[in-house]
Amino acid sequence: MYRTYTCGELRISDVNKQVTLAGWVQRSRKMGGMTFVDLRDRYGITQLVFNEEVNATLCEQANRLGREYVIQVTGVVRERFSKNANIPTGDIEIIVSELNVLNAALTPPFTIEDNTDGGDDIRMKYRYLDLRRNAVRKNLELRHKMTIEVRKYLDSKGFIEVETPLLIGSTPEGARDFVVPSRMNPGQFYALPQSPQTLKQLLMVSGFDRYFQIAKCFRDEDLRADRQPEFTQIDCEMSFVKQDDVIELFEGMAKYLFKEIREVELTEPFLRMPWADAMKYYGSDKPDLRFGMKFVELMDILKGYGFSVFDNAAYIGGICAKGAACYTRKQLDALTEFVKRPQIGAKGMVYARVEADGNVKSSVDKFYAQEVLQKMKAAFNAQPGDLILILSGDDAMKTRKQLSELRLEMGNQLGLRDKNKFALLWVVDFPMFEWSEEEGRLMAMHHPFTHPKEEDIPLLDTDPASVRADAYDMVCNGIEVGGGSIRIHDAQLQAKMFEILGFTPEKAQEQFGFLMNAFKYGAPPHGGLAYGLDRWVSIFAGLDSIRDCIAFPKNNSGRDVMLDAPGYLDQKQLDELNLVIDIKE
Amino acid sequence: MYRTYTCGELRISDVNKQVTLAGWVQRSRKMGGMTFVDLRDRYGITQLVFNEEVNATLCEQANRLGREYVIQVTGVVRERFSKNANIPTGDIEIIVSELNVLNAALTPPFTIEDNTDGGDDIRMKYRYLDLRRNAVRKNLELRHKMTIEVRKYLDSKGFIEVETPLLIGSTPEGARDFVVPSRMNPGQFYALPQSPQTLKQLLMVSGFDRYFQIAKCFRDEDLRADRQPEFTQIDCEMSFVKQDDVIELFEGMAKYLFKEIREVELTEPFLRMPWADAMKYYGSDKPDLRFGMKFVELMDILKGYGFSVFDNAAYIGGICAKGAACYTRKQLDALTEFVKRPQIGAKGMVYARVEADGNVKSSVDKFYAQEVLQKMKAAFNAQPGDLILILSGDDAMKTRKQLSELRLEMGNQLGLRDKNKFALLWVVDFPMFEWSEEEGRLMAMHHPFTHPKEEDIPLLDTDPASVRADAYDMVCNGIEVGGGSIRIHDAQLQAKMFEILGFTPEKAQEQFGFLMNAFKYGAPPHGGLAYGLDRWVSIFAGLDSIRDCIAFPKNNSGRDVMLDAPGYLDQKQLDELNLVIDIKE
Repeated sequence: MYRTYTCGELRISDVNKQVTLAGWVQRSRKMGGMTFVDLRDRYGITQLVFNEEVNATLCEQANRLGREYVIQVTGVVRERFSKNANIPTGDIEIIVSELNVLNAALTPPFTIEDNTDGGDDIRMKYRYLDLRRNAVRKNLELRHKMTIEVRKYLDSKGFIEVETPLLIGSTPEGARDFVVPSRMNPGQFYALPQSPQTLKQLLMVSGFDRYFQIAKCFRDEDLRADRQPEFTQIDCEMSFVKQDDVIELFEGMAKYLFKEIREVELTEPFLRMPWADAMKYYGSDKPDLRFGMKFVELMDILKGYGFSVFDNAAYIGGICAKGAACYTRKQLDALTEFVKRPQIGAKGMVYARVEADGNVKSSVDKFYAQEVLQKMKAAFNAQPGDLILILSGDDAMKTRKQLSELRLEMGNQLGLRDKNKFALLWVVDFPMFEWSEEEGRLMAMHHPFTHPKEEDIPLLDTDPASVRADAYDMVCNGIEVGGGSIRIHDAQLQAKMFEILGFTPEKAQEQFGFLMNAFKYGAPPHGGLAYGLDRWVSIFAGLDSIRDCIAFPKNNSGRDVMLDAPGYLDQKQLDELNLVIDIKE
Repeated sequence: MYRTYTCGELRISDVNKQVTLAGWVQRSRKMGGMTFVDLRDRYGITQLVFNEEVNATLCEQANRLGREYVIQVTGVVRERFSKNANIPTGDIEIIVSELNVLNAALTPPFTIEDNTDGGDDIRMKYRYLDLRRNAVRKNLELRHKMTIEVRKYLDSKGFIEVETPLLIGSTPEGARDFVVPSRMNPGQFYALPQSPQTLKQLLMVSGFDRYFQIAKCFRDEDLRADRQPEFTQIDCEMSFVKQDDVIELFEGMAKYLFKEIREVELTEPFLRMPWADAMKYYGSDKPDLRFGMKFVELMDILKGYGFSVFDNAAYIGGICAKGAACYTRKQLDALTEFVKRPQIGAKGMVYARVEADGNVKSSVDKFYAQEVLQKMKAAFNAQPGDLILILSGDDAMKTRKQLSELRLEMGNQLGLRDKNKFALLWVVDFPMFEWSEEEGRLMAMHHPFTHPKEEDIPLLDTDPASVRADAYDMVCNGIEVGGGSIRIHDAQLQAKMFEILGFTPEKAQEQFGFLMNAFKYGAPPHGGLAYGLDRWVSIFAGLDSIRDCIAFPKNNSGRDVMLDAPGYLDQKQLDELNLVIDIKE
């Protein structure tokens, strides 16, 4: 061992001990005849002292140490003259008698400090240096702790972690698969799993009863800002359960994790909001409930007064921002610009201030008498000083989504989205299907194995689009942290589902035959859930992006710029795989 | 919830309780007016009773239940008339009042019993049914417990589990990579990791100090009997350590696991055997020390007596099988056939029995006087009743390996390889390089990042083939369960190693530039180890194959016969990936 202590553990009680430490030079400074070096490792920082008068040669060596040199020192622990209350080792320092340079270091391309001067690109290229920064390493320590606690909780509830294979078959339903050519089976490919969904269902058929896995999953999608081609799920499945059973168990896990990781006690049961309400009142299937601004529909109140925008609208709705009547014209114009951005796509925004005397002053006063505006005020239960913001449109669902964006923006502007406050809820009763314009058919909203609500099963024949599913998402602070469903365990119902989704029986058999066949041998009722680990760690860590809770993330082109991967293969490798590359222009 | 209790938990103290159970019909039998059904779930078996006289309709329903039907029953717990001491629920039974068939089942293609009538092929095709068998499920439960305990131990020692990416770059050094075409980077490929070796070394450069990961690894090799294309490693790395530190920590883990999993206390320090000794005395770098039969070299004793086979041999050596002098001529001929099989490749075998009077009777008596044979007897310290088996050859290393196979076979025949006995040791001081006939150059025996022994570094220039490495394997019962090394942390030494391995500086830079560059920014001394999880679980489970401790294994052609993967892609998928398949005859 190169050390007798780490750089984080010496205290005043260790004074006079002879110790050996090893680590990186964080910084050094020369003051008169003394040289002070901060030695860093994962556990902390310890101050080293070299005295020119005592040992000039040694001090001279210390003066030549550069940032990030790896050194080993031996010396005696001494009480510091001027203590540093900011670090746990701040009471002591080491009077060094031996110095051994284990490795020199080039000057790093950015500073290894909490607030670094390195931009994203250079930090990613030198990720191994970026990971030296406390802030980044702490996120990965949190991730480690979180997986330890997840396993502890699930193990205590009788769940068994089962590793499912990563080289499986490709299933074109769903997102695009990453595929792996098989050399031993020429012309054939494995696929990397988008999730262990079908395999965990097979484990239920096997009687495993309670399964989980912290599982790598893969999706070859065009990457949006905060997506990664490989990501990690906490994947769970249970047998002989109904929706309430799954929800209770995983609500328990969420509460356990908040307590263990963040020391936050969530005592109340989480709200369970039907999907239809979430859309109606928040325009989102993942509402941020850290703040109010619930939508108020205004069709009855504002239609029929000659304002053609509203008169022709399929939806009129608004939010009430408490105390924001002070917004200036400039701020309101900026909000209008915000909702008119192509990503949001509203045509415009109407606003109304509630003045000190209770009167409402709106941007459409010429169409509406005060009496109508007062009715509106009452609908919002708005008070003097409040600001009402209204959107309308010819597609109710689209307009609600626009209003949702406006609501979130107002939440940001008014400081209502505190990262240290946590609002959790379940969104339930999702629709079974959604219409795909692109495919010209109904698609499974969750996936084709989701169980329809028992009472809606007759609608599968008459009005499939209105069928609701036993599906549920857990939402935290406006982010979907997990979701799942009760699954179909009946081969006939599963076959009907594939039929509605436009599969021929042959195609269904080809792609999911193994699962439908398995169901014929005694499948128990079952259901489950998967959490996005990366996402959940980022919430706990108070991060905006998942990237900094992943050790070696990829950029938006799916590249690992540190490894410079992907790359080209040797011709020999391509030949062995029976592959020819043919890039079309 | 479909049940109030599982099938494994009701006891005599629960008598008179009304309960609801759910599970699979294990078997049913009709006795007079009574029908008995054994209901099974993961937790156990509970006997259900239906009485024709009490409820004829219900009993009639019960009589129609087939094997593996999934049912839910409600009834009252009653003390059994004839108790079954073999199962924990054997004191009670359930008088059923309600029966609900949750799912019917086809007759399974093999019996779901500990000793099944299903052959390997059919069990793999219907793996989800095979996994219902206690024997198989127990292995996966053991695997789960083992990963829980591994994490507990390593977490307690300050190790952080870090997930490293699975989509990385291809490195032709080592085994063959599985590759993944990148759609977003046309013509380029990711590779799946053969191990997280370079990434964990980068984490050491990052100052993570103690890293581990239970990591999926991939190798596209022609599969031998007991290899899988994807397998799982317990992968570990530590900074500021020397070989002894790594060995001590992981010896501690082995002892911890044996205690927790198998209740076996291993109190003695493990033997550390230099590789040269392992080869000399056991002809193997993973000697099975559950039994003796150490090799005795006989060159000095048996050369020069006119037996040309020995006179021309580069190596003559033998083993002494205690008490096996009773072997018949037929048994000895079979042993000769055994060593002459092409997989072993010996030319023949010489044997000698020590008779009751102490005389030695050998198969080459016409060349050797009793006096010489007595010298041989003394070399083995052989006693009356012992059997001496001797091999010779013109390549010492090859002959030792043949003798090793013979030794293991004798161990099997004499019942010396007890699965409930565990002999662990470290093999240390491996050679740094081995000569590859195929490549016509030195290859790294472990991998190119292995640190040479400090005292052997000067030999790198003069006699690289004789350089020993700071490399170590943990061996249990003749199986390598893990191995590792101290790594090179100096960019110059690493460059020299690549040079000896025949890399041009450009090629080294291209393939490992990211690592060599990282080393320039302050790499700590570091080392580590990786255990084969599948292998280790199979030892704990007393299995001969790793296949039955993997939920969904692949066959020898790398196929998952249950999923029927790999398979063919749609043309659209190939086009998106810019790939054309070109199978040469």
